Amino acid sequence: MDAVTSSSLRQLLATQPVAALATLHRGEPAVSMVPFVLPAGAAHFTIHVSALATHTQDMLAHPRVGLLVIAGAVAGVPPQAVPRVSLQADAEQMPPHGDIYAETRAQYLARFPDAAITFELADFSIFVLRPVSARLVAGFGRAYGLAGDRLLGWLRGTG
Amino acid sequence: MDAVTSSSLRQLLATQPVAALATLHRGEPAVSMVPFVLPAGAAHFTIHVSALATHTQDMLAHPRVGLLVIAGAVAGVPPQAVPRVSLQADAEQMPPHGDIYAETRAQYLARFPDAAITFELADFSIFVLRPVSARLVAGFGRAYGLAGDRLLGWLRGTG
Repeated sequence: MDAVTSSSLRQLLATQPVAALATLHRGEPAVSMVPFVLPAGAAHFTIHVSALATHTQDMLAHPRVGLLVIAGAVAGVPPQAVPRVSLQADAEQMPPHGDIYAETRAQYLARFPDAAITFELADFSIFVLRPVSARLVAGFGRAYGLAGDRLLGWLRGTG
Repeated sequence: MDAVTSSSLRQLLATQPVAALATLHRGEPAVSMVPFVLPAGAAHFTIHVSALATHTQDMLAHPRVGLLVIAGAVAGVPPQAVPRVSLQADAEQMPPHGDIYAETRAQYLARFPDAAITFELADFSIFVLRPVSARLVAGFGRAYGLAGDRLLGWLRGTG
């Protein structure tokens, strides 16, 4: 994978506002939409979800999730060739106090100011999604797998 | 759900070219992108996938899948409120012969003409995804569940 491809696919994660989140729901795969943040320099995603939502209960019961981020439609690019990144990740609920929580909340609200009210609701919490592997698709026949330190470096923008 | 909401969410399925497909991969949820077709008047989706792709092997091993279709970004609509439809469905591989196959292939190619070459490749096949339940989200706090005959009627555009 050349540096331009690597950078443009990482840019997807920094700019697309929503991802498809796959969770295990009573033994079956389920998929829902979540706004997400990849904090600058970090190798994890953060999401802010309600305990009333099925995907939240799913993550508490079974932390391994799938995440897919798709580029917006581009004129002249067939749907099959749309750039995207899919990842496997482990989800962990963050306790709602302390400096790391405050920083994460600030990052989330900088991205999604309309979500401020959800931080006033007791049923919402932050989950951190730590990727363990990723598949990057840049176009037709241009797929790359990443894991381990190469994945972490790529997410941080240093790899 | 009022008729305008119902119709506009169904329109999503008729117009968006790609969905997020959640499959069970070695016991874990995984999610990938697939172009899809909801044929006019039908209550199922069709996709065309390669046996070399992980999601295809996943569907053969475990037919229950999740599917998510998200509206494109709309100016002024926060990401949390973007309309979307998520479904649970059962996937079944279609034998590559007969009138139904020919009709399905024609519908697929009418939607995705660039995919013609993939119908020449031996490793590609059509899968039919038959929804069993759906969750429609029209915006903030506007979510609706559908199953059974109501779901089938809605998919067909007659409900």
